[in-house]
Amino acid sequence: MTMVDDSVRPVSRKAARASGRKTAVAAPSRVDRGTRAKRRFDTKTALIRFGTEMCTERGFQVTGIDEVLKHVGVPKGSFYHFFSSKREFGEAIIDNYAQYLSRKLDRLLSDPKRRPLERLAAFTREAQQGVAKYQFRRGCLVGNLGQELGGLDDVFRHRLEAVLLSWQKRTAQCLAEALRAGDLPAGANVDRLAEFFWIGWEGAILRAKLSRSVAPMKHFTEIFFAKVLT
Amino acid sequence: MTMVDDSVRPVSRKAARASGRKTAVAAPSRVDRGTRAKRRFDTKTALIRFGTEMCTERGFQVTGIDEVLKHVGVPKGSFYHFFSSKREFGEAIIDNYAQYLSRKLDRLLSDPKRRPLERLAAFTREAQQGVAKYQFRRGCLVGNLGQELGGLDDVFRHRLEAVLLSWQKRTAQCLAEALRAGDLPAGANVDRLAEFFWIGWEGAILRAKLSRSVAPMKHFTEIFFAKVLT
Repeated sequence: MTMVDDSVRPVSRKAARASGRKTAVAAPSRVDRGTRAKRRFDTKTALIRFGTEMCTERGFQVTGIDEVLKHVGVPKGSFYHFFSSKREFGEAIIDNYAQYLSRKLDRLLSDPKRRPLERLAAFTREAQQGVAKYQFRRGCLVGNLGQELGGLDDVFRHRLEAVLLSWQKRTAQCLAEALRAGDLPAGANVDRLAEFFWIGWEGAILRAKLSRSVAPMKHFTEIFFAKVLT
Repeated sequence: MTMVDDSVRPVSRKAARASGRKTAVAAPSRVDRGTRAKRRFDTKTALIRFGTEMCTERGFQVTGIDEVLKHVGVPKGSFYHFFSSKREFGEAIIDNYAQYLSRKLDRLLSDPKRRPLERLAAFTREAQQGVAKYQFRRGCLVGNLGQELGGLDDVFRHRLEAVLLSWQKRTAQCLAEALRAGDLPAGANVDRLAEFFWIGWEGAILRAKLSRSVAPMKHFTEIFFAKVLT
């Protein structure tokens, strides 16, 4: 409601008269541009948001564009205004989720109030809350789509692997800080440790879904910190 | 071709005459029962085999019964002779895969020619060959369906979790042997270690699919043996 609306300046009656346009038309016309831009933004966001929910809970292949449109309340033409195909919609959903989790990782893994390893532990706790919040129905979009599409579609496969590598890189940076701070054994290979973390973490989220419990995520984290990082 | 055929004994003309039946009818009739039984067995096996392939590569929800029937070459009636519903078909596919992997685990993890931990390592190597054999398109049926159906269907969820627990139990027994042989630190909690292995292992198979490489499976195994088991 705010960001785009604030950028719309009303047109004065005088300026409208000088330009030969009718105020009643001119003013709404400029407001409409802003409103339209905002609506476009909102519609695209709503499509991606509901698409994310559908893809995370049920999968990409069974997610029907018609159902998404019906839920968001927009005509089919609107969809193809934003996305040329269902594939492009899927890619936008992955990118959006990747950015969301990257922001979360950036926020938690660079928290100056915590030691580096405590930041990673904080991320695992927040993720536990996240999966419990949706009654373990969702898990991780990237893990889900990776499992579903990894063997079927090379474009999605590369994209999903790239997302995991970007999260891994952020984690490795955090571990490198821990190494510099003397909180990891000298000579620890932070890239390999970060890769191990993400391999096991996606497995832990899958098991959390199956057992409807954060116990597998806790269990993986405990052994990772107690054994793998020491 | 053999097991069921071997159990069919031909009826002698004399026995047929004594029973008042015509040989020409009696003999094929008994052979037919056997042939029918064999065909039923073969058909059910073929349905489960192709269903497994479809479910592992594409998922359960998008697997169409019509496509399975067309591939196997049986009419719809045959399908409902074996399975009352698609769900029951899915359950048979899970059970068949669970038994297949349990047999593999039993064979490898009780190999008297290897020390217990070497048996587990042998399992991870054979699994690497398994995923590479299908060009990383399949992965693990239980991991795939767990990811797809874990949040959607409680019956499947419980079944898949039970399968993982049964594999974990076999793994824990192998680790218990290692403990008794002095190959694990005294006091090691073999149940928790086996659980950790299966949490991470399913994650490693997912990453193998995404990266089209056995590297994540190797990487997980190496750190598991070098750090977690020591």
